[in-house]
Amino acid sequence: MKTIIEKYGHKRVTVVEGGITRHRSIFNGLKVFAENEFSSHLVQKPDVVIIHDAVRPFVEEDIVSKVVMAAKEHGAAGAIRPLVSTVIASAADGCLDHSLERARYRASEMPQAFLFDIIYEAYQQCTDYDLDYGTECLHLALKYCKTNARLVEGTADLWKVTYKRDLYAAESIIKDNLSQQVCVITNVKETLAQIGFLLPESLKSQIKVEAISVSLSKNDSCLQNIISGQCYNFVCVNDERWTIQETQELVNMLEKSNIPLLYPVVLILVHLDIPENNSFSIGMEDLTTIKKFARETKKKNILVYSLLIQYKDPLLLQETVNSAAALIMALIKDRNPELTGQLLVA
Amino acid sequence: MKTIIEKYGHKRVTVVEGGITRHRSIFNGLKVFAENEFSSHLVQKPDVVIIHDAVRPFVEEDIVSKVVMAAKEHGAAGAIRPLVSTVIASAADGCLDHSLERARYRASEMPQAFLFDIIYEAYQQCTDYDLDYGTECLHLALKYCKTNARLVEGTADLWKVTYKRDLYAAESIIKDNLSQQVCVITNVKETLAQIGFLLPESLKSQIKVEAISVSLSKNDSCLQNIISGQCYNFVCVNDERWTIQETQELVNMLEKSNIPLLYPVVLILVHLDIPENNSFSIGMEDLTTIKKFARETKKKNILVYSLLIQYKDPLLLQETVNSAAALIMALIKDRNPELTGQLLVA
Repeated sequence: MKTIIEKYGHKRVTVVEGGITRHRSIFNGLKVFAENEFSSHLVQKPDVVIIHDAVRPFVEEDIVSKVVMAAKEHGAAGAIRPLVSTVIASAADGCLDHSLERARYRASEMPQAFLFDIIYEAYQQCTDYDLDYGTECLHLALKYCKTNARLVEGTADLWKVTYKRDLYAAESIIKDNLSQQVCVITNVKETLAQIGFLLPESLKSQIKVEAISVSLSKNDSCLQNIISGQCYNFVCVNDERWTIQETQELVNMLEKSNIPLLYPVVLILVHLDIPENNSFSIGMEDLTTIKKFARETKKKNILVYSLLIQYKDPLLLQETVNSAAALIMALIKDRNPELTGQLLVA
Repeated sequence: MKTIIEKYGHKRVTVVEGGITRHRSIFNGLKVFAENEFSSHLVQKPDVVIIHDAVRPFVEEDIVSKVVMAAKEHGAAGAIRPLVSTVIASAADGCLDHSLERARYRASEMPQAFLFDIIYEAYQQCTDYDLDYGTECLHLALKYCKTNARLVEGTADLWKVTYKRDLYAAESIIKDNLSQQVCVITNVKETLAQIGFLLPESLKSQIKVEAISVSLSKNDSCLQNIISGQCYNFVCVNDERWTIQETQELVNMLEKSNIPLLYPVVLILVHLDIPENNSFSIGMEDLTTIKKFARETKKKNILVYSLLIQYKDPLLLQETVNSAAALIMALIKDRNPELTGQLLVA
């Protein structure tokens, strides 16, 4: 935990030792604000505390804010969701006792918020049974402080990452979020004008595209803005054969921005190839150069792939560009670290 | 629905028109067994009927069997799962009324099974309110036939594919299931003996491997058995430069087997390259041949990729083979249709 806090530069975090049950851990957290012995330097007591699970990583600011405002007014508040399945009570013999009318009940989710004095009072009055077997903070506020929590309708994102399938879902959601925008950088050269126009056009049907035409060796403020705007995907169109130098400039900019610290950045080097005679080929030295470069940037959480667009027949160019766009989208969505350094051909 | 039944050759399926609510649809299904007017030719009434949701596609035979046996004995039975969140009741003012003790309640899932006479009787006695607002078949059996259903503990696989994240999870689970086994086919040639040994060894740490050494042009019963054993991944090691002919034999065998009808099959053409001089290159004609071939097989739901293993320095061979194995695993796990026809280099 301390390593994470340091890595991401969090400043206002105090880590508290957990207990053997959920409620005991929460109680330990609350004590930091009220009891000197639990904190080397007492943290100032807040009006409202928010209680949240790490297993619900996709919580939005909006719901946190709603729950806090409701807690300020009502003393306690929590997010709820409709039930997905009917809930039933079983009898001791393993048979159905009764089923609950689904419309009357809700799943209680996190985040929840409380006036500090209410939830702390509730935990202080808790029995050992509550602390060992209880699962619901709203219940404690009701039982010990007569506070009926305000229930706030949450979004589907609040689900609990519980099973292996939830990890799959979480990964896909993150990848989806990272695949919303791509920046296409075209080197300022006459020969690239056509592709610099066609490629962004073809991508636009699938993703938000920022197309800019710059020389990467110059520090460009427009590109700088796109990077700070949390763009996680870059396509560099060039006509020189696998020159790594200009790309290195972009890698440096990305590294300085801290963007790759959180999530892997996809960087696709698109090379436009106009064969001088009709049969041309890819040399192994080129492949080795790209591979080596990709291996280095991967350590910085920047995933480099290369893509060759063959420019043979002007009549087929649009088709080739569409196929390049499809490959670019596949690389962005998959964000597969194993395929870095590979050269794809459109 | 009829197209699906025809495509997959299902024989014992009768499709019934759904109703505007869940219970009305189920009732329509039951009527087929009891009322002449609802079926052109009356389907024979069964002892036990199983009710299941299409949104729970990962149901195992074992739980179906357990639920059916329990229904035969108790009249009704259904799968249950522990609750993931606490369930609460809200008051009319949007505040917490009370929370349920999580350990006493269960989520009611599908499949459920009933003696036909019990569930049909229950539906016949249902009120319109039940049919329009009810969600639980077990509840109807209890209310109208005094039958307390037997509750059977289900597996985590029974979850309901409800939200977009569930589709992501379902896709990952299917891909995971398809990535359990790979068949490595090495052409019977002296030069391939070493790689034909090293590659399966390297793959074995990540996946079950069947390694066979055959000439694909001969109809091999061992290969035939592997295909009928529902293997969805094939690696063909060859030293001739991208000969498609032998691979075509495998494609024909796969097509005849009906295996690609259900899920995409991954077919990776591994080519061992021993450069005559130190600098060698990939010609565009080779790439075009593979691409064209891959485009044709994709229509048959067979995803073809190619992979080049450079055999330069014998000391580095193990490392190269490991990197080839990593690429093969990535291609198998991703099963990405956009990348078919591409040539990767290990």
